[in-house]
Amino acid sequence: MAKGLLIVLSGPSGVGKGTINQRVRELSPDIKKSVSVTTRLQRPNEKDGIHYHFISQNEFDNLIKNNGLLEYAKVYQNYYGTPKKPVIDALEKGIDMIFELDIQGARLIKQAYDDCVRIFITPPSIEELQNRLNNRGTETEEVKALRLSETIKELNEAKYYDYMVVNNDVEKAAKTIIDIISAEKARTLRNENKINKLIQGDNII
Amino acid sequence: MAKGLLIVLSGPSGVGKGTINQRVRELSPDIKKSVSVTTRLQRPNEKDGIHYHFISQNEFDNLIKNNGLLEYAKVYQNYYGTPKKPVIDALEKGIDMIFELDIQGARLIKQAYDDCVRIFITPPSIEELQNRLNNRGTETEEVKALRLSETIKELNEAKYYDYMVVNNDVEKAAKTIIDIISAEKARTLRNENKINKLIQGDNII
Repeated sequence: MAKGLLIVLSGPSGVGKGTINQRVRELSPDIKKSVSVTTRLQRPNEKDGIHYHFISQNEFDNLIKNNGLLEYAKVYQNYYGTPKKPVIDALEKGIDMIFELDIQGARLIKQAYDDCVRIFITPPSIEELQNRLNNRGTETEEVKALRLSETIKELNEAKYYDYMVVNNDVEKAAKTIIDIISAEKARTLRNENKINKLIQGDNII
Repeated sequence: MAKGLLIVLSGPSGVGKGTINQRVRELSPDIKKSVSVTTRLQRPNEKDGIHYHFISQNEFDNLIKNNGLLEYAKVYQNYYGTPKKPVIDALEKGIDMIFELDIQGARLIKQAYDDCVRIFITPPSIEELQNRLNNRGTETEEVKALRLSETIKELNEAKYYDYMVVNNDVEKAAKTIIDIISAEKARTLRNENKINKLIQGDNII
């Protein structure tokens, strides 16, 4: 088993995965973020290799063909994906990797890497999430109803996750995620080598 | 499912379960320690209801007969046990309970209460544990060899636990146990009610 943890943050659209992810890495700078590949055009404020690896459609197709992606999706004519090799290399070195993915991406990554730890971020209530999403105030009732049904569908996925964390307070949510990472590292199923070493008479500190 | 967590600390004799347990409760005073019942005579420095509930052999036998104990053991002619009712009552109220038990007690409590969280405390090395146990320096080689084989037998149980925590530094070990408790509270399998409430439109904070 790889030494690093692959941590997946997911949850309904608008729940604040990005803000929590950033705060987790500020509090625990050893945890690294995965940089996705995309076929989308680079925006002026974006840096290649930091925000995304910007690649051609041909390069993206080759990654798919060679099983080089842990998950990918098409969003508005552009492709986005998580390259497998840098993630696996980092995990093997004992580096913890954190991902923020939509529900679909989180489902795909579980299939590609079963040992991932999946954390579902929820809002304190559907109402609060709808308020955040509707804050521009220009949506029609139809759009709002569609969004609500989408949110409910997404929340129904929570039970398939290992953990759920309510995003009522970013600081508290980030702290709980750091506790989860600490606890997961102490699970016996990740420490069988250590137990064996101990029994053989080795010092494990 | 009960709202409080039943946390079991176990590990080989001499590993320091008691010291860690005490430090955990100092850091998290909301976590309560279970008070065992015993047929042993009360010592002058002990308080009934604090250190133990001192009861008669007849009372102990009745507890066994009425399935009133989560686990019990006989040690040097005296009986020790964990009374079931106060523990279950506390858990139902949402109070977290922590126990320190030997390997045998930890096995029994898992049978009586499957939802317990079991943490195995290990020494940094067998050598260090033997040094702690032999520190009086008066033991024969035979006693030491017997103790070593007992320790190895105990360490072999670690893999059946949910978590393992190395007691190299009491502060660090106690902190990891508190992280584990925080993470366990966030497990989706303990939060199905919350997920359902959220989907029904309730506020879960």
